[in-house]
Amino acid sequence: MKDKAVDVERALDASVPRSLDDPAALVFDSMRYSLLAGGKRVRPILTLASCELFGGPPEAAMPTACAMEMLHTMSLIHDDLPCMDDDDLRRGSPTNHKVYGDDIAILAGDALLTYAFEYIARETPRVAPQVPADRILRVVVETARSVGADGLVGGQVVDIKSEGQPVGIETLEYIHEHKTAALLESACVCGALLGGASDADVEKLRKYALNIGLAFQVVDDILDVTATSEELGKTAAKDLQSDKTTYPKLFGLERSQEIAAELICEAKLQLAGFDPSRAAPLLGLADYIGYRKN
Amino acid sequence: MKDKAVDVERALDASVPRSLDDPAALVFDSMRYSLLAGGKRVRPILTLASCELFGGPPEAAMPTACAMEMLHTMSLIHDDLPCMDDDDLRRGSPTNHKVYGDDIAILAGDALLTYAFEYIARETPRVAPQVPADRILRVVVETARSVGADGLVGGQVVDIKSEGQPVGIETLEYIHEHKTAALLESACVCGALLGGASDADVEKLRKYALNIGLAFQVVDDILDVTATSEELGKTAAKDLQSDKTTYPKLFGLERSQEIAAELICEAKLQLAGFDPSRAAPLLGLADYIGYRKN
Repeated sequence: MKDKAVDVERALDASVPRSLDDPAALVFDSMRYSLLAGGKRVRPILTLASCELFGGPPEAAMPTACAMEMLHTMSLIHDDLPCMDDDDLRRGSPTNHKVYGDDIAILAGDALLTYAFEYIARETPRVAPQVPADRILRVVVETARSVGADGLVGGQVVDIKSEGQPVGIETLEYIHEHKTAALLESACVCGALLGGASDADVEKLRKYALNIGLAFQVVDDILDVTATSEELGKTAAKDLQSDKTTYPKLFGLERSQEIAAELICEAKLQLAGFDPSRAAPLLGLADYIGYRKN
Repeated sequence: MKDKAVDVERALDASVPRSLDDPAALVFDSMRYSLLAGGKRVRPILTLASCELFGGPPEAAMPTACAMEMLHTMSLIHDDLPCMDDDDLRRGSPTNHKVYGDDIAILAGDALLTYAFEYIARETPRVAPQVPADRILRVVVETARSVGADGLVGGQVVDIKSEGQPVGIETLEYIHEHKTAALLESACVCGALLGGASDADVEKLRKYALNIGLAFQVVDDILDVTATSEELGKTAAKDLQSDKTTYPKLFGLERSQEIAAELICEAKLQLAGFDPSRAAPLLGLADYIGYRKN
């Protein structure tokens, strides 16, 4: 997993050009500032590992892996804006709009969102000509659906509109499924598609991803209570302060930890039919997500 | 052209669902509010006419035509935000953020941007299975490039950063080529690609589009001086008030009108080698753009 993270880091750095003499160089700076600000690179690693599960070569999945991180970064930049979650700190550094201003932050997000699709559609045929073009189109569709009004954006809308209101488990699950699980889902599904998976196997990866996606968010809620700002690289206890509905608030800390463990277990069950050595990275990632400390 | 506009209007209405019982219904409302607020539908009509020039059926181009309008609408929503151009009026109605708030307006723009790519990649193979998948991938790449940091976004960045500063003709052309011409270019190029054009013919359409794109913006600058807010459906004399560099300011009104006419002439020359009856819609669109009154 560490090797993969190093590969992803190098590929991300190469994906967005510096363009020093471009009149719009500022927006490239802003895109790179957030894209290369560290982070766990969970989504790209999931894409690479899902491709690998079906014997696909890493280069076939790398453009899409990078696109997943561009999309994740874009959603963070826009969510952090003053008119949304109003966050000053992200991954231990000032948020994009704090450095570049709200206008450039919005535009950098727009550019990363757009570039993700350009990068999948342009680079995949170039580096992996053996992947059929109709598979790459399916990757574009899956990825877009996970980011738009039926995915990330829909989750953020409901999250914003629920603020300061009592929220039940259904709404909380809607938010988590859309804000977090959707992109993890497309990260895995697209990796599987690029690795040549059958439709039935693609659906197994989808279920795996939805379970780790929900677990990811339950753990996020738990860490907001149990970790410090230094450990998280972002403001801790923010949910508590804003009286946000979270898993610990609805179920208590102990039951929340059980829920996370159950979801991880359910995710790993989806991989039971695969060659254990090939499935090992995805099994390890599930544990990592369920038991991480930041 | 009027028939095509009616077809586009119907297709746009069908493209974004109402989703009344979706928890994120608000963002669908906001997307539809701006997408269906009228407008001249120049970009979708260009896509349809460019496809038609090469004998392609309209259904092959319609998903991409709709996507062009989604992208144009998205750029208007974000450009109108208080932290950007701060506009209250658009096409005679309150701008998106005035109705839905800044947060939802940003998210509706993000959703339209994403949905444009989903719609091209999902709908084109469904309604026009004869179009090769690798052509559709090229459409995704061309479209994305025209919207991102090398297109619309880049133009908007330089436009914002030039505000209140003396701007020369080079910067003015950069802004117009990126903010306006780039999307008209991909509208035409993608129509040609979907109609089965050769690479040489695609490049002719690209030149046609760049010329009408620049002309479009020169005329916009002229109308800011000569038309009323009622005629424009948006605030008139805004450039004058903000002391913005425009063609009339740099060259005077008369020379600006000459420049527009020259660009339209250059655009039409690119179509000289085509069957005149098939080229008629694109020739007419060039004249419409060069001599429009709003």
